[in-house]
Amino acid sequence: MAVTPPEAWMARALELARRGLYTTDPNPRVGCVLVKNERLVGEGFHERAGEPHAEVHALRAAGPAARGATAYVTLEPCSHHGRTGPCALALIEAGVAKVVIAMADPNPAVAGRGIALLRQAGIEVEVGVLEEQARSVNPGFIMRMDHGRPLVRLKMAMSLDGRTAMRSGESQWITGPEARREVQRLRARSSVVLTGVDSVIFDNSRLTVRPEQAELEGVELIPGRQPLRVVVDTRLRLPEAAACLTEPGRTLVATAEGHEPERRARLEAAGAEVVAFSADAGGRVDLHALLRYLADVEQANEVLLETGATLAGAMLDAGLVDEMQLFVAPTLLGGEARPLFQLAGIETMAQQRGLEILDIRAVGRDWRITARPERRTLPAR
Amino acid sequence: MAVTPPEAWMARALELARRGLYTTDPNPRVGCVLVKNERLVGEGFHERAGEPHAEVHALRAAGPAARGATAYVTLEPCSHHGRTGPCALALIEAGVAKVVIAMADPNPAVAGRGIALLRQAGIEVEVGVLEEQARSVNPGFIMRMDHGRPLVRLKMAMSLDGRTAMRSGESQWITGPEARREVQRLRARSSVVLTGVDSVIFDNSRLTVRPEQAELEGVELIPGRQPLRVVVDTRLRLPEAAACLTEPGRTLVATAEGHEPERRARLEAAGAEVVAFSADAGGRVDLHALLRYLADVEQANEVLLETGATLAGAMLDAGLVDEMQLFVAPTLLGGEARPLFQLAGIETMAQQRGLEILDIRAVGRDWRITARPERRTLPAR
Repeated sequence: MAVTPPEAWMARALELARRGLYTTDPNPRVGCVLVKNERLVGEGFHERAGEPHAEVHALRAAGPAARGATAYVTLEPCSHHGRTGPCALALIEAGVAKVVIAMADPNPAVAGRGIALLRQAGIEVEVGVLEEQARSVNPGFIMRMDHGRPLVRLKMAMSLDGRTAMRSGESQWITGPEARREVQRLRARSSVVLTGVDSVIFDNSRLTVRPEQAELEGVELIPGRQPLRVVVDTRLRLPEAAACLTEPGRTLVATAEGHEPERRARLEAAGAEVVAFSADAGGRVDLHALLRYLADVEQANEVLLETGATLAGAMLDAGLVDEMQLFVAPTLLGGEARPLFQLAGIETMAQQRGLEILDIRAVGRDWRITARPERRTLPAR
Repeated sequence: MAVTPPEAWMARALELARRGLYTTDPNPRVGCVLVKNERLVGEGFHERAGEPHAEVHALRAAGPAARGATAYVTLEPCSHHGRTGPCALALIEAGVAKVVIAMADPNPAVAGRGIALLRQAGIEVEVGVLEEQARSVNPGFIMRMDHGRPLVRLKMAMSLDGRTAMRSGESQWITGPEARREVQRLRARSSVVLTGVDSVIFDNSRLTVRPEQAELEGVELIPGRQPLRVVVDTRLRLPEAAACLTEPGRTLVATAEGHEPERRARLEAAGAEVVAFSADAGGRVDLHALLRYLADVEQANEVLLETGATLAGAMLDAGLVDEMQLFVAPTLLGGEARPLFQLAGIETMAQQRGLEILDIRAVGRDWRITARPERRTLPAR
């Protein structure tokens, strides 16, 4: 009998994990398959927070067939009593013979404990099959666990000459419907949509997921779920009539400490949650503090940064952009139009900011460039 | 016996034609194969102006086997007595039975005459096999014949945020060696390298083909051949010490009429050829007049435009850019750096300049975007 390689079963488990792309937040996306005598006897994935983990779904599907089976799991089974009981124990009790794990749990509080539990019960454990692919399914969760902040994905729509809007601020519909659909999907997978107050004032954008625009047929979204909207607004200039304040979901206004209590009260009355952060050297909201807050208090894994040149440049300058998704429209806006980034202190070529371009592909009549800033050291958690 | 389709033979003829990419200027690149009883009996291509045409090479290679053969030619055989005698007659005299032609000669003075000669001699003629591919081998020659000006290919090197240089003008080495090699190849195939005087002043670029950088092993270049360098210099500001004036090949300085005869004499003494053109409404060299001159006097087919935002923008605004090759480096230069294009009168999104992106591909660590301005009507010759 031809033996199916473990990578093939793990690839199936990863496919299942990805089905939770839009729904597991703030939990990681995890998939599991159970294989016995070269046959799949059960599979499952974590669907949403508060519901069973992937392993439990797979064990339920397999029933008694789980005894003696090999489990392929995309993330180390948990060892803690959360809302669903530790999955490592469930695998032991079901009599699984072997567990193949793509990656250890990055959560420093639990890393390795699930594996230890399994081994203590005499189960053979293998770790690291398709690890890189498994990591790419949960980049934000891993970033939060490893570095205490969410992953930040910067999305911008630009002309081929690197412009995002006319000098007047006019910017509607640079890119086509396919690119806008991709942006909707980026929002839908994110815990937070982050923007600057000027972008809200100029565009009055709603910053919401419109499921019909995301065209996610066959993928379950959580009805009514919206990523947390976060507006960086040092001096509390957000208009009370801003569209985003009346949309479903929450809007958090990040301000610097000590600003206008009256204005704050009025924004709260209009539906905003206002949180004051320490100010940086320039008197603006400390972006590092904001991201730590989003990780620790809001359990944010992935942040979608949708904003203008100033905040985008400040986030880049602060080393807080992990991935860039640039949607490039086949058009020119000219040298007077608004730039992509305002970056501090670039005067010579030696100071240029290197990027790594990971992918370029057509999206309708537009092109999507995926890039990331050249590797810099991230602080440990 | 399996019959080889005519497109396959024509594809071979086109492959031969392309071997003249760097050498036939100002003539078109042409290839020819002779086929008899499903076997190739002779082939050839036009190697350089003043030497035999493709058909003559192929007939010589075939010898008596040409009698009764089918000739596949990428361009209509000529009917005029040039330096090598009309190819249509040579095919007739060799007793060729059939001639398959990819495209008719775009030269309005001779179009159709070669075909008529062949048909009068009782030879079967088929036209239009792989016509589009054949046109793409000679875009500049066709443009010159159809519209009385050369094809203009704009090359720029930019950062991902659409910047070509620092505010100071510093710009060396935005892109890597592979991209620079591609630029060398673009120069090598061009009749003219066109630039503005400010680019020469800032970069002191030589604008020459350095065969060792073009890495064209296996492709014959004409030793010492350099594209004509053309500097748009309305007010004759080109320094006499400019590096391009002492390089091999010619440098033509395009100025507006009536400017500083003394300065002109000194530039001519330094090695420049100075030509005065009518001025446009803004008092600058009339770019349409310049391109007509390059086509009519210099027989320029392909012009490589290597310049800064002002001349590049003016050429775009004048509808004189046919193709853009943008080399994009994975780097950011920021909002203060120099823009790609200064375009006149873009104030609203409705005035944006649409492009068609034809191709994006990796070139070393950089990316090359091939685009063209959205179709506009070209004047007839």
